[in-house]
Amino acid sequence: MSTQPTFILVIYDVSDDWRRNELASALKRLGLTRVQRSAFIGPSNSALVSDVKNVCRRIIDFSTDNVQIYPLTPASYRMRVVIGKEFGPEDELSGGFIV
Amino acid sequence: MSTQPTFILVIYDVSDDWRRNELASALKRLGLTRVQRSAFIGPSNSALVSDVKNVCRRIIDFSTDNVQIYPLTPASYRMRVVIGKEFGPEDELSGGFIV
Repeated sequence: MSTQPTFILVIYDVSDDWRRNELASALKRLGLTRVQRSAFIGPSNSALVSDVKNVCRRIIDFSTDNVQIYPLTPASYRMRVVIGKEFGPEDELSGGFIV
Repeated sequence: MSTQPTFILVIYDVSDDWRRNELASALKRLGLTRVQRSAFIGPSNSALVSDVKNVCRRIIDFSTDNVQIYPLTPASYRMRVVIGKEFGPEDELSGGFIV
């Protein structure tokens, strides 16, 4: 089982439409792929977590919003389970399985 | 670095209020802890992923809704980053850090 986290999953709880859209656009610009309305995933590198943190500091309201970043090992990524409708045409993830 | 996934993170994209509330209640009954409006986390065991899948099959609309289950290693769980406001008083997670 691979142990190094080489993916990150970013999930967010942002109620304001403008901030939520800004955050989604910024995460996309950082190279992450949208997998749900409020979840992005992508290959990680040493700078990416810092970049995501900086983007959050700039955009979110710390009194109401919440963002969580989870490093994932390749094994965790492969073992993920996706149930139901995949997110739109831009979702180009491979692996995993639909139940 | 610990390699066995001993936590699971469940994130969901469910637009209908009734189904979303049903799913949240069911995940809580399975012993998971809410960390965002549409995200639960908890210690995993061999039956839990199956239980979550069964709950999803019963509740969600496969044509519109999406649920994703990510197994996390203890290291991934410890390395998670939480930014902004934590989710309510029921959130009793330890570890991680607020930036």
